[in-house]
Amino acid sequence: MDDNFQYNILNTVNSPKDVKTLNGEQLTQLCKELRQYIIDVLSENPGHLASSLGTVELIVALHYLFDVPNDTLVFDVGHQAYAHKVLTGRREAFKNIRKLNGLSGFPKRSESKYDTFGAGHATTSISATLAMALADKINNNDNHYHIAVIGDGSMTGGMAFEALNHAGSTNANLLVILNDNGISIDKRSGAMSQYFTSITSSYKYNKFKNKIWNALGGNKDEYNKNRTFLRSILIFFKHLFAGKSNFFEALNIRYFGPIDGHDLHTLIKTIDKLKKIPGPKLLHIITTKGKGLTAAENNPTVYHAPGVFDAKTGKREAKPRTADEPLKFSEVFGKSMVELAEKYENIVAITPAMLTGSCLNEMNERFPKRTFDVGIAEEHAVTLAAGFATRNIKPFCCIYSSFLQRSFDQIIHDVALQNLPVTFCIDRAGLVGDDGATHHGVFDLAYLNMIPNMIVAAPKDEVDMRNMMYSSLSIDKPFAIRYPRGEGFVADWKQDFTNIEVGKAQELNKGDKIAVLFIGTVGGDAKQAVEELKEQGIDVGLYYFGFLKPLDEAMLKRVFDTYDKIITVEDGVKTGGFGWSVENYALSNGYKKDIKVLGIEDKFIEQGTIRELKRICGIDKNSIKQEILNI
Amino acid sequence: MDDNFQYNILNTVNSPKDVKTLNGEQLTQLCKELRQYIIDVLSENPGHLASSLGTVELIVALHYLFDVPNDTLVFDVGHQAYAHKVLTGRREAFKNIRKLNGLSGFPKRSESKYDTFGAGHATTSISATLAMALADKINNNDNHYHIAVIGDGSMTGGMAFEALNHAGSTNANLLVILNDNGISIDKRSGAMSQYFTSITSSYKYNKFKNKIWNALGGNKDEYNKNRTFLRSILIFFKHLFAGKSNFFEALNIRYFGPIDGHDLHTLIKTIDKLKKIPGPKLLHIITTKGKGLTAAENNPTVYHAPGVFDAKTGKREAKPRTADEPLKFSEVFGKSMVELAEKYENIVAITPAMLTGSCLNEMNERFPKRTFDVGIAEEHAVTLAAGFATRNIKPFCCIYSSFLQRSFDQIIHDVALQNLPVTFCIDRAGLVGDDGATHHGVFDLAYLNMIPNMIVAAPKDEVDMRNMMYSSLSIDKPFAIRYPRGEGFVADWKQDFTNIEVGKAQELNKGDKIAVLFIGTVGGDAKQAVEELKEQGIDVGLYYFGFLKPLDEAMLKRVFDTYDKIITVEDGVKTGGFGWSVENYALSNGYKKDIKVLGIEDKFIEQGTIRELKRICGIDKNSIKQEILNI
Repeated sequence: MDDNFQYNILNTVNSPKDVKTLNGEQLTQLCKELRQYIIDVLSENPGHLASSLGTVELIVALHYLFDVPNDTLVFDVGHQAYAHKVLTGRREAFKNIRKLNGLSGFPKRSESKYDTFGAGHATTSISATLAMALADKINNNDNHYHIAVIGDGSMTGGMAFEALNHAGSTNANLLVILNDNGISIDKRSGAMSQYFTSITSSYKYNKFKNKIWNALGGNKDEYNKNRTFLRSILIFFKHLFAGKSNFFEALNIRYFGPIDGHDLHTLIKTIDKLKKIPGPKLLHIITTKGKGLTAAENNPTVYHAPGVFDAKTGKREAKPRTADEPLKFSEVFGKSMVELAEKYENIVAITPAMLTGSCLNEMNERFPKRTFDVGIAEEHAVTLAAGFATRNIKPFCCIYSSFLQRSFDQIIHDVALQNLPVTFCIDRAGLVGDDGATHHGVFDLAYLNMIPNMIVAAPKDEVDMRNMMYSSLSIDKPFAIRYPRGEGFVADWKQDFTNIEVGKAQELNKGDKIAVLFIGTVGGDAKQAVEELKEQGIDVGLYYFGFLKPLDEAMLKRVFDTYDKIITVEDGVKTGGFGWSVENYALSNGYKKDIKVLGIEDKFIEQGTIRELKRICGIDKNSIKQEILNI
Repeated sequence: MDDNFQYNILNTVNSPKDVKTLNGEQLTQLCKELRQYIIDVLSENPGHLASSLGTVELIVALHYLFDVPNDTLVFDVGHQAYAHKVLTGRREAFKNIRKLNGLSGFPKRSESKYDTFGAGHATTSISATLAMALADKINNNDNHYHIAVIGDGSMTGGMAFEALNHAGSTNANLLVILNDNGISIDKRSGAMSQYFTSITSSYKYNKFKNKIWNALGGNKDEYNKNRTFLRSILIFFKHLFAGKSNFFEALNIRYFGPIDGHDLHTLIKTIDKLKKIPGPKLLHIITTKGKGLTAAENNPTVYHAPGVFDAKTGKREAKPRTADEPLKFSEVFGKSMVELAEKYENIVAITPAMLTGSCLNEMNERFPKRTFDVGIAEEHAVTLAAGFATRNIKPFCCIYSSFLQRSFDQIIHDVALQNLPVTFCIDRAGLVGDDGATHHGVFDLAYLNMIPNMIVAAPKDEVDMRNMMYSSLSIDKPFAIRYPRGEGFVADWKQDFTNIEVGKAQELNKGDKIAVLFIGTVGGDAKQAVEELKEQGIDVGLYYFGFLKPLDEAMLKRVFDTYDKIITVEDGVKTGGFGWSVENYALSNGYKKDIKVLGIEDKFIEQGTIRELKRICGIDKNSIKQEILNI
């Protein structure tokens, strides 16, 4: 933290009420302090930095003008809401954001009455806020305001459109604030993006800007110095020139803006005026992701969640990786994609707005025509993959596990029912750590397990992962490969591709009476547990199931013929997952053995480190050891 | 069938090639014959009538102009594609459409090479077609055309928007044909709908129409006589006046139209011109749902799928229902909604474009401000419900089982994670019969089972169903009630509401050694099986689990303490469903008994009558009896 910085105003704000008592100068100072506080805290305790820096003025303006939670305020995705948390009685608690038992990184109803709707996944805000506005009408309590704050990235999600389409046919008192920073996590994509750009850079506006530019002598340094001043002028004129937005007006949503989202007083003035305009309306504000920290402004993708950094310079404290340290699973995935794309010209990669997170940047640079960032559009991504597969193209559809939930129907209806050879690369599977309940990828094994025709694979390490990717090329069926967040196990991951037989399990250790059966990378814990017990003279069988589906029934037969006690381990929900599949095999084949299923219980798991959460869920090394010793 | 009608041209068309050889007059005659053939066949063998009558000219034009399957042709939803089936070598097979082992009611890749992409659910066509267009570019085979035919109803689905947003940023050779009949199944809703209406009835156009009208003397009969003539003139001028569509142009999709979708020669001329225009483009055509059968034109909602009718008059052969015949589950649901809405002012009903199918018309008429038809927008529907639940409104979210798959993430992320008291009324659960693989609601039990906080109920009959609806009002958790397509069991369904204890199973018969445990309406078969065996002197226990979740463990304990052999029955997928839950209970509690799970195997089930399909899946009365006898 910067110990010299004084939080004179911020320290007096203990609830939104306190914001309302401040005068203009104090509000400006509050923004400054808020921004510094977010930088200070996050420099030591990593979180979503750049998005939250971009919404400081907006959030101050909203709490100044509205009476939350009587007025409702919903943040789309929610990682931009840190200033809101700080202003709503959670200033001190903010220091433990995303930590075990600390604040959630996202708005959360059970955490604060000021979080009127939880988030984590994108594009839900307009639906929820519209409902609140309609509810107040039904309740004859229609003197409240209902505000959804949504980024331009989220606006590409189909659900946002569905909600706008509905809103435009109502007279609901709904204010959508389009927080347009020109970027979601990566540079945004799609036609809508070009459209927003065209609004904010219309011909007349650019002509005007050039005039100013020339008046300043066309000198870049001079221009930069005058940037702040210019910005406010330019945005004012942009407003005059750009006219109405046809897209939103076509949906019967009144459109206002764009205005400068960092000009606090214009924000307050404009939104205050909008309070008097009934019905659904949208205010377009232009913000800078990472605003106030130059390093973040210059590189908002990296500073989306930069990890630990220097609060003054923004310099990230990335410790250099040594040659014997394994890469992240995502990194090995990304590099393997490139290798495969080099070999096979018919491979394409699809990502819904997670180019960097999925490590597809290199693929995108090398093979831009075969890399498709479709925006936040998981449904479209999957059916696009299905379409590719019908025309002799091999799609790798790369989606985080918890976001793939959005595509459940498309996987069933467009891919599996037609038995199309789409390879799903499911990143962030299992417990993801500090992003918490909305982001854990713990349902995938269970929801894919029930879909006919699917191959469902969960490699034990990154070498198997890339070999499964390779193997999927010669399989004419949908093939899902799920792998976790974080580092792998094998520094020497770049080995020649070899084929992995689909549905084949492996005996890693032949034991006495007890066998541990695992799926996926939780095998790391299982293996350690078994090894440590071996040193104590207890010899436990260890079996690696790389495939939930098809399940290796021959191996299960061997296991059940050999052992009396079986423990299964998975980092997904128990219900309908690997353990239950093993139980069903046993009972369907007349085996009456003891089976203990380890996995995620039937409840939502909050945030913490992955290590902490594994312990809490009873799937870490010690828990597995203890289960064995209990038997 | 109309025996006098001669199919002189149609009988010569055995593949799309034959369409291309016809001259203008013959093509017109082909349309006439096609329409008559569809009416004749469907009058005896029910199917989706009105949609398919509306697309006859379009489909003839497309097969005349394009070379399917080298050019790709994708029908959104697909129930409008009957003429396509008839023209592509399936004229005779068409007589068995939707029957067991007959043609599917939807396009299906495994049925014909001319069905380039399967459908059943809405809003997938643009994604799939865009992929095909992009694939051909990658394959350096870019001389083909790629056509998606999508209704104005489907256009409200978010996925269609996601796909347009992506398409507009590409140079893909994509032609979207917007088949605008002003209706999906019910009258369409939402702002987009108003927008389409405004395009086709702009101020200038109306002024012009009035001029013509006045010239004709303002006489309604005269006007009607001149309708056909007028139509073509008016549509021509509409085209001139309406100008460009800002909505689509904002997404960088070139917009053409609207034109008359029943004017074959204009269609051919226009689409032929569009062949020469590269990049993504949209042609807006205006059609009449039910075109050519007056009864269907006048009442397209009823004639969406009218059942058996008179081919000449259109008169439906609805046999009158006697007082002792049970209503359909949907009907009891609809009437119960009204009863509850009368009692409780904070109840709302939400449907994504299934007002009539879900029997919510009466609710809509009685309580229009508390009934929300949100268009084909399942994702939005669920999060809208979640939003309502935060503001003291009790939402009943009514979605067909297989369409609710679209909302899987919203159920988890917006409803269950926040533990919001949304009541899900899940119609068409289990096997639905002739709609086939895309429509069976067989996954719901399994995918809801894994979601924390959910109550998952499956009533044995319609009286329990309505009591569960009533009971959900006093439960502060998400509550899913799934019930099947078709008639119920209880003619006297309208009994006073009584509370059903959540998670409580019932012993219906105490038997000797074997017990049958069932969930939901498949209990009808189980009950009959047990009764018939009782007459043969075999006394089998019978247990009704109205709740999959929470599972009545006390009852399970009693069952496992009493019986050696257990059979479970459900009309959903086995994987992760009721039977597996019972197996997991047994193994988690040390019971080593024989358990046999009856339910849907791990494969997709095609169309047939519900009775036929139950037999095939081994969950009808005889199969259950046989299983008991086998033991």
